[in-house]
Amino acid sequence: MQIGMMGLGRMGGNMVRRLMHAGHECVVHDIDPKSVAALASEGAVGASSMEELVAKLDKPRHIWLMLPAAITGGVVEQLAALMEPGDTIIDGGNSNYRDAVDLAARLAAQQISFVDVGTSGGVHGLERGYCLMIGGPDESVRQLDPVFATLAPGGDDSAPGTAARGYLHCGPSGAGHFVKMVHNGIEYGMMAAYAEGFNILKAANAGKQERSADAETSPLSEPQYYQFDIDVGQVAEVWRHGSVISSWLLDLTADALAGDSELSQFGGRVSDSGEGRWTVKAAIDTGVPTPVLSSALYSRFASQGHSVYAEKLLSAMRLAFGGHFEKKG
Amino acid sequence: MQIGMMGLGRMGGNMVRRLMHAGHECVVHDIDPKSVAALASEGAVGASSMEELVAKLDKPRHIWLMLPAAITGGVVEQLAALMEPGDTIIDGGNSNYRDAVDLAARLAAQQISFVDVGTSGGVHGLERGYCLMIGGPDESVRQLDPVFATLAPGGDDSAPGTAARGYLHCGPSGAGHFVKMVHNGIEYGMMAAYAEGFNILKAANAGKQERSADAETSPLSEPQYYQFDIDVGQVAEVWRHGSVISSWLLDLTADALAGDSELSQFGGRVSDSGEGRWTVKAAIDTGVPTPVLSSALYSRFASQGHSVYAEKLLSAMRLAFGGHFEKKG
Amino acid sequence: MQIGMMGLGRMGGNMVRRLMHAGHECVVHDIDPKSVAALASEGAVGASSMEELVAKLDKPRHIWLMLPAAITGGVVEQLAALMEPGDTIIDGGNSNYRDAVDLAARLAAQQISFVDVGTSGGVHGLERGYCLMIGGPDESVRQLDPVFATLAPGGDDSAPGTAARGYLHCGPSGAGHFVKMVHNGIEYGMMAAYAEGFNILKAANAGKQERSADAETSPLSEPQYYQFDIDVGQVAEVWRHGSVISSWLLDLTADALAGDSELSQFGGRVSDSGEGRWTVKAAIDTGVPTPVLSSALYSRFASQGHSVYAEKLLSAMRLAFGGHFEKKG
Amino acid sequence: MQIGMMGLGRMGGNMVRRLMHAGHECVVHDIDPKSVAALASEGAVGASSMEELVAKLDKPRHIWLMLPAAITGGVVEQLAALMEPGDTIIDGGNSNYRDAVDLAARLAAQQISFVDVGTSGGVHGLERGYCLMIGGPDESVRQLDPVFATLAPGGDDSAPGTAARGYLHCGPSGAGHFVKMVHNGIEYGMMAAYAEGFNILKAANAGKQERSADAETSPLSEPQYYQFDIDVGQVAEVWRHGSVISSWLLDLTADALAGDSELSQFGGRVSDSGEGRWTVKAAIDTGVPTPVLSSALYSRFASQGHSVYAEKLLSAMRLAFGGHFEKKG
Repeated sequence: MQIGMMGLGRMGGNMVRRLMHAGHECVVHDIDPKSVAALASEGAVGASSMEELVAKLDKPRHIWLMLPAAITGGVVEQLAALMEPGDTIIDGGNSNYRDAVDLAARLAAQQISFVDVGTSGGVHGLERGYCLMIGGPDESVRQLDPVFATLAPGGDDSAPGTAARGYLHCGPSGAGHFVKMVHNGIEYGMMAAYAEGFNILKAANAGKQERSADAETSPLSEPQYYQFDIDVGQVAEVWRHGSVISSWLLDLTADALAGDSELSQFGGRVSDSGEGRWTVKAAIDTGVPTPVLSSALYSRFASQGHSVYAEKLLSAMRLAFGGHFEKKG
Repeated sequence: MQIGMMGLGRMGGNMVRRLMHAGHECVVHDIDPKSVAALASEGAVGASSMEELVAKLDKPRHIWLMLPAAITGGVVEQLAALMEPGDTIIDGGNSNYRDAVDLAARLAAQQISFVDVGTSGGVHGLERGYCLMIGGPDESVRQLDPVFATLAPGGDDSAPGTAARGYLHCGPSGAGHFVKMVHNGIEYGMMAAYAEGFNILKAANAGKQERSADAETSPLSEPQYYQFDIDVGQVAEVWRHGSVISSWLLDLTADALAGDSELSQFGGRVSDSGEGRWTVKAAIDTGVPTPVLSSALYSRFASQGHSVYAEKLLSAMRLAFGGHFEKKG
Repeated sequence: MQIGMMGLGRMGGNMVRRLMHAGHECVVHDIDPKSVAALASEGAVGASSMEELVAKLDKPRHIWLMLPAAITGGVVEQLAALMEPGDTIIDGGNSNYRDAVDLAARLAAQQISFVDVGTSGGVHGLERGYCLMIGGPDESVRQLDPVFATLAPGGDDSAPGTAARGYLHCGPSGAGHFVKMVHNGIEYGMMAAYAEGFNILKAANAGKQERSADAETSPLSEPQYYQFDIDVGQVAEVWRHGSVISSWLLDLTADALAGDSELSQFGGRVSDSGEGRWTVKAAIDTGVPTPVLSSALYSRFASQGHSVYAEKLLSAMRLAFGGHFEKKG
Repeated sequence: MQIGMMGLGRMGGNMVRRLMHAGHECVVHDIDPKSVAALASEGAVGASSMEELVAKLDKPRHIWLMLPAAITGGVVEQLAALMEPGDTIIDGGNSNYRDAVDLAARLAAQQISFVDVGTSGGVHGLERGYCLMIGGPDESVRQLDPVFATLAPGGDDSAPGTAARGYLHCGPSGAGHFVKMVHNGIEYGMMAAYAEGFNILKAANAGKQERSADAETSPLSEPQYYQFDIDVGQVAEVWRHGSVISSWLLDLTADALAGDSELSQFGGRVSDSGEGRWTVKAAIDTGVPTPVLSSALYSRFASQGHSVYAEKLLSAMRLAFGGHFEKKG
């Protein structure tokens, strides 16, 4: 089918490629003309402006946005002003699901449909396909089925429903980004579970190391049990085969550790991109305990330096009640 | 090769089957004669006592134990008294790695080798193979290579090392169970990450529900954002295809939810079997922060009812300072 | 000075009493005429309606609300419609500080000041005084100083500023409830710290208890170290005297435990009233790690039964990969 | 009464002073002769060796040790060899309660009593008195009552039991250090609750700050709610007066913040001294959920740099699945 795509970065560009490869007609736009030209040279129809993008699409139009969350809302409003009743705007970015709820309500007044699609698969999606979590009105989602089927990994066509082929209509507008949000929350938790575990494996030789004997260093009481030099890269690899914790994240982890098990190219500052925060806030709103997902989020905050003032305060208290001076380094 | 197996329960029995299928000769013993008879009828050599088990094996002997952790230590000592220098005892159960460190040291005095093998794969291992994490002396581990290669899932024979085929010599005695312990710690964390996430999905319709307006119920300030009835079984299925959080645990979860997404056969009492506890204790000994793994463990403790006294105390404090009476039900 | 009070529940009524006792003139209103009559009999000027309350106050008027958070916003709007430029509305309840930010902006257009006062002290405030955290415009806060000084516990008059006397102008509108919100977040954390600690003390005799030997019960490896029958009420008492963890909360805890150290009147369902949730959400917005405050909040959620679905899912996974059946009771 | 004291550091020295001030006769020893001489000049009887210390005491002897935990066990054994049936050794240091259980059992064979005393009060104990948590045989604890009564803060003599005067016989040997261990675990939790709360207050002006707009920085969606410049020192002070979270720790915190609310003399490296670790390990052994106490402990571990490898691994995973490069600084 025909589809418009706006935002031709890493994600959007590759989605266009996957769609064209399956024979879909893609009309594409980006604020960077070079990105448009590049995809045009691969067979897409280029559009140099939003107006042109809209003009080049047959009705009912479907325009898919792959934009930074911060600007998506504004673009949707601009685009809607150019579109007509029966048209559909799809947000495939990492937007807050609340924006989808609000935007859908506003666009409904203009009889324009809003479909939110949570998209997982990262840089591997071009080849593997993208897992799609979809929210929006039934009719629009039905119209877009050929696009979803192509973008998704595909799979067992005989299975009832589409989930087994990698895409799912999760509910009304907002449901797609809600499910994607929780997906990323889980992702944070899983990543942290592996990271903590490998950190323990790295420390398994703690008993071999000289340990300060000062009052500010907690002693290791049974060093004989911490004499292992574990090859963490090999462990990651072996766990990929037949263990209960095998996963795609572990596959990637094993790859990364195989190259350099010290991970010396990294400093340890871990960004978070919003979904993890929104997941925990949704959990709090609904009273759901999420100690694991929160812990994973807070470790990232701490890695960004945001725990320092709290730590200074602990040192100040320790000095005040116990005369403990901070240990250096 | 020839191997003795003691402990013919779900795990041990299936391991013998997998070994015999590949042509290994298994001499088997269990305190339950029926278990011995069953495997004998499938081609194993039965032994009605530890003495007979030892007598029927060629030197150097290799006896693999698949026993409850609580009795393994005692059996190892009894068995060692019947064995000779050059023989090897393998513990494939869920023992504490510290026991392996201690037992190996004791058996070394008798020139008997002790090999500890962490085994993951659960009830699916017979068919898929077991992921094996091995600790022990090089020579014994080398002798046992054909057994490990058969029990493991196998895989790329051209890869350097054995990890890509699903088994790994992790280090000296204790290293196998240490790595398995951390494996299970990670498993707890991953399981909890999924469980918390699905719990949020279940609560995504909280805005539809009547909410008490009393002072003891925190209000849901923006109910319009919690109007989703999510089909969690379908979500689990779609995440299996192309998403960053796909994993074998998710495959099993999708299966379980496909049958009954309310999980009504379960009450929510979650046991823990030791490794999760030992993992966190090892982390504490070595000063490694493990908020995620600990949170996962504590949720299990709480599910077993062990947080009730703490909660009563909170209620007592709230009554004392604020005059808040506990809400019923 | 003269002040209007609306909302004569446990908190509001006692605040009026404390104010009258110091000679302030209180004009009071409540939807329950009996509450008005009761305080009128103690010397307050009763008002049977909002209109009458406004009419009976001299300009510039100061009306203090002690109402449930859920209705405060609406009452403020109604009241503002009856008031005049230069008047001040004070919200002393447990409202979200965001409401104060929004309400202050709206009322500013009418030249009515909005002052938010976080109030701590609970049922003991009548006697001990209330700790007051104040947000709002300088001029209004200055006008209200005599009221704040009376409600607060008082203290060192020679100290610079008012904090040493138990009240503080924390910043513009919203700052008072923001500081109170964080106060309650800390309160949750402290309460949980005590509760967890006393729970460990209660379990110090775990080694004396019979323990199931089944595979679903983690063994207690060194029971000899858990043979203590601790009198937790006496411990709470001794900690009040000279220890680093003495506090007012501990005083109350010791009282509660002295009566019945089993706390048998409580079931363990712990409500949360909003501030704890808002604190964590504010921490997440600003990227501040709050593992302790969140953990305390989640324990309350779990006590309310909101972790059950997650736990069922864990049981379902354990059955799927390991054939583990849930242990009963 | 007469008592021997060994270990004349900050704690031991001040305890001798408090005892002598009340008329007790103190025989003192330290490996540093200057410490002995200093206290001798204040009225103590000096002893230049363990042998002399033992010799100068009347039977039954009572020798109190205030030594680093790492050497206490060895000194007890040496000392016991010099003592006689009926004598008592008291360990007032921060030893693991398990050592007390083990030492008491060993000394019992020699009919020497072992009393473990957990001591809280820090550098303020000389003046305020020490909170004492005592484990050991009834007879020895009875003999030592005059010493305990002096060291403790004292208080209501009419109250039943001794807890209201600041000391408590908690149970058999080990019970004192067990209770002190849990005390310190709670202390960690309370300290962290305050530290996290003040960290949020510090961040209350986040909406005023320029924020990077790159994909690796999570946006602050509602900056209008984070416009507060909170004077955290003043807040600490006001909370001391009438609030639910007033405590001795808060008193000290207010002092520290009054001097320099930026706490610029501290770097944020927070040591932990053992008890916090043992508390969590005891909780795990007994299956008690301690999310708050553990979180507090892990924040200290992280402040010591022990989370870096885990964070590097998270960055490696993010690069692998999403092409995210680590943000610098």
